[in-house]
Amino acid sequence: MSAYIKLKQIFREASLSSDIAGILHWDMSTMMPANSRNQRAEQLAYLSKLSHDKVSTNEVRDLIFEAKNEDLNENDLRNLSEIEREYKLASSVPSDLVEKISRTSAKCEGEWQEARKNSDFNLIKKSLDELIKLVKEESNILGKVFAVSPYEALVNKFEPGSNTKLIANIFNDLQQFLTPLIDTIIEKQKSQKILPIQNKISESLQKDIAKYIMKIIGFDFKRGRLDKSIHPFCGGSTNDVRITTRYNEDNPFSSLDGVMHETGHALYEQNLPEKWSHQPVGKSRGMAMHESQSLMIEMQITRSQSFKKFLSTILKDKFNIVDNAYKSENLYLLGTRVEKSYIRVESDEVTYPLHIILRFNLERKIFNNEISVKDIPEAWNEEYKRLFDKKVDNNTNGCLQDVHWYAGLFGYFPTYSLGALTAAQFASQLRFDQPDLDLNIQKGNFNELIKWLKINIHEKASFFSTNEVLEQVTNSSLNAKYFKNYINNRYL
Amino acid sequence: MSAYIKLKQIFREASLSSDIAGILHWDMSTMMPANSRNQRAEQLAYLSKLSHDKVSTNEVRDLIFEAKNEDLNENDLRNLSEIEREYKLASSVPSDLVEKISRTSAKCEGEWQEARKNSDFNLIKKSLDELIKLVKEESNILGKVFAVSPYEALVNKFEPGSNTKLIANIFNDLQQFLTPLIDTIIEKQKSQKILPIQNKISESLQKDIAKYIMKIIGFDFKRGRLDKSIHPFCGGSTNDVRITTRYNEDNPFSSLDGVMHETGHALYEQNLPEKWSHQPVGKSRGMAMHESQSLMIEMQITRSQSFKKFLSTILKDKFNIVDNAYKSENLYLLGTRVEKSYIRVESDEVTYPLHIILRFNLERKIFNNEISVKDIPEAWNEEYKRLFDKKVDNNTNGCLQDVHWYAGLFGYFPTYSLGALTAAQFASQLRFDQPDLDLNIQKGNFNELIKWLKINIHEKASFFSTNEVLEQVTNSSLNAKYFKNYINNRYL
Repeated sequence: MSAYIKLKQIFREASLSSDIAGILHWDMSTMMPANSRNQRAEQLAYLSKLSHDKVSTNEVRDLIFEAKNEDLNENDLRNLSEIEREYKLASSVPSDLVEKISRTSAKCEGEWQEARKNSDFNLIKKSLDELIKLVKEESNILGKVFAVSPYEALVNKFEPGSNTKLIANIFNDLQQFLTPLIDTIIEKQKSQKILPIQNKISESLQKDIAKYIMKIIGFDFKRGRLDKSIHPFCGGSTNDVRITTRYNEDNPFSSLDGVMHETGHALYEQNLPEKWSHQPVGKSRGMAMHESQSLMIEMQITRSQSFKKFLSTILKDKFNIVDNAYKSENLYLLGTRVEKSYIRVESDEVTYPLHIILRFNLERKIFNNEISVKDIPEAWNEEYKRLFDKKVDNNTNGCLQDVHWYAGLFGYFPTYSLGALTAAQFASQLRFDQPDLDLNIQKGNFNELIKWLKINIHEKASFFSTNEVLEQVTNSSLNAKYFKNYINNRYL
Repeated sequence: MSAYIKLKQIFREASLSSDIAGILHWDMSTMMPANSRNQRAEQLAYLSKLSHDKVSTNEVRDLIFEAKNEDLNENDLRNLSEIEREYKLASSVPSDLVEKISRTSAKCEGEWQEARKNSDFNLIKKSLDELIKLVKEESNILGKVFAVSPYEALVNKFEPGSNTKLIANIFNDLQQFLTPLIDTIIEKQKSQKILPIQNKISESLQKDIAKYIMKIIGFDFKRGRLDKSIHPFCGGSTNDVRITTRYNEDNPFSSLDGVMHETGHALYEQNLPEKWSHQPVGKSRGMAMHESQSLMIEMQITRSQSFKKFLSTILKDKFNIVDNAYKSENLYLLGTRVEKSYIRVESDEVTYPLHIILRFNLERKIFNNEISVKDIPEAWNEEYKRLFDKKVDNNTNGCLQDVHWYAGLFGYFPTYSLGALTAAQFASQLRFDQPDLDLNIQKGNFNELIKWLKINIHEKASFFSTNEVLEQVTNSSLNAKYFKNYINNRYL
């Protein structure tokens, strides 16, 4: 058996065990009884150690060396290169540290649910401190191995090849573009006559509507599910993609927007090339690319006027929801309403980057040891005041709102806004390639759109870098001008 | 580190991985989208191989040898003895056979769901044949290692120390006792005035009632769940016990009885000694003991007149179900109705042993190579005719009704009736120890009862054999007279 085939087997087993962890993690957020948390943390730590140990051995190192001298085709060479990246990432971090991070973050995530419910940062302070210490340890190691700053090493885990200085520049530019614009838009929107949603939609009807639309857009329910959790996510395992949302009966579109976002993630996962299912090159590219797919569906497509026409029609025809507030023009105004919200996941696409900039700035300070864990709530509130000119009223609306940090995910947030820029860039090309796009959306025909995404992005999996894909599809590397144009067009 | 401590760590990891498999298996039967089946089969096979490989190494063999010379207390010695039994079971069966059985049975179980729905044995014939060949291979190996017949080796996997000749004798005696009795009881019950249930109870209300009663009896929802599946089961993992049922709106008690049965299993699991959670000696004893606990709750307790009084009261007071059919005396008559049913899980406790005897006889024939897979439907129907004097109308009511064989579980069925005998023996002692039992049940006070089960049975885990526990609690080894007395008292 060739060295490369052996490597493929090893990485296939690692993929199986991370798929298993994906189901356990989904279960933990949707189904698991409260007191199983510690035990689940043990199970996840065990699996995490298992995958880690499997891909970080000297045997893997030697096999990679051998495989490089074997006669491999282009696709296999790309897979080998991803295998090597994973080996390098895994072998540099000791397995007991990986296990500790997994166990501590599972525990911390559980406590966060309580802390968030009670808006009490003290309930989570100790565990978060423990967790951040461990992640710092990891980031220091990775920083040295990859010759970057500790924080940049973390960002690279989620979006390979990112440069935090470049991101800081882009974000700085964005902030300068957005800050005056937001006030202008809010002022402009004051004269809009919007009918508020007064007829509540029950949770179960919201779910039916969400599933109906997911299906029409292309989500395959034979290889996935929709469930409920505190924080919406897209998880599960290869070929079994499970998304979640939360329901608010007073605001049915908060849930639907969330579902559309996660559906964008899910379509990417469901359309990855099956032949390469359990190989590193067959996985989705970085999280910025992933976010571009969720925002493509949520923002570029389902917040458009054409989609609101489609939505209004099906609400009337399929679900008997007849009310002036559910007319398409009103839905469009509701969906493009800009306001300074506390909550990132409920905020509009114009203010959204400011939420990310806040978190990006704080994360850099945490990993540069400029602020300690106990200072997080205050630092959060100060930064929010600076960016939004508004005071945070409690920690549930502040630093306790997102699960990420409490699940050990630092360096993840910037990928959200990189994704927004990438989505706008793809969408500009898509509209050029498909002049009938809006007509099709209005008719509820998403086939061509999804086919375009599948061929141009999803099926490319990790065969190319994010930047290569951008160049292939749009003839340009990442450029914020597309996002700015898009925002100007939609909101001014 | 002592050899024994090392062994404890190894078996702890094996327990973690079988706990993970428990959750994946639960998910497969309750939540998983249809097309994930093959992938789930791969995941389960991977975990199964993992636990198997972990406990069957030469290192484990050597550690057991060393540990025997270490200074261990009584509890640790018992644990070591269970460790050795598991090692012997695992090391004698090659790991690729274990993996094949796991993969084939997951696949076969999926196809069974289709076959059962369509009442079409042909849909499953090929996979079942493949599966039985593999289980035969396993049983031949185990038979040689433990110097018993291949079929006895399988029964011993589920109930250590059982003797199939003894079981055959007991079953023969039972059959002779039951066959004339059943006709007598049916004749006697003809004059009973039973009001049929005409007011349907919705699935969601049935679920609420079931959960209410589970909670009162002592099921801990912080360490467990109730869900829905085709075939009711008790699964999940240590400290996270998940039971399922199926609902029939026309017959709400079919679901409630199922829930009570699985609650009995679940209480056993939830009351195992936490200190020994992941060690072999801390697991539940054999499946006959397990079944004695489910039947204790389902038959001995919740089919009693006193429980029906309690049930009737809460249906009225808590759930506003007022109807003469839901009066306690009528519920009692409904719950003790004897008839010759096709379906084992829906049949009464008097005819139940005949269903088991049918399966036991067929299993012995399959493993003695007296019948082949293609002959199963006919052999089933013939045996049913012989025992029940009635013709099976279709395979869903015949050999496709139970999941067991299609999940690779042969030798499991006899434990159901051994459990019924054991439950009757325990119950006889319980009623002697607690003269107020019925009064307490009627008032909905189950504390003393559960405490008795916990101390006398649950907490003993695998520290003693089933027979030792019987002797300790009832001063007698297994004796069918208790069951016969109980049936005579309740039904004549």
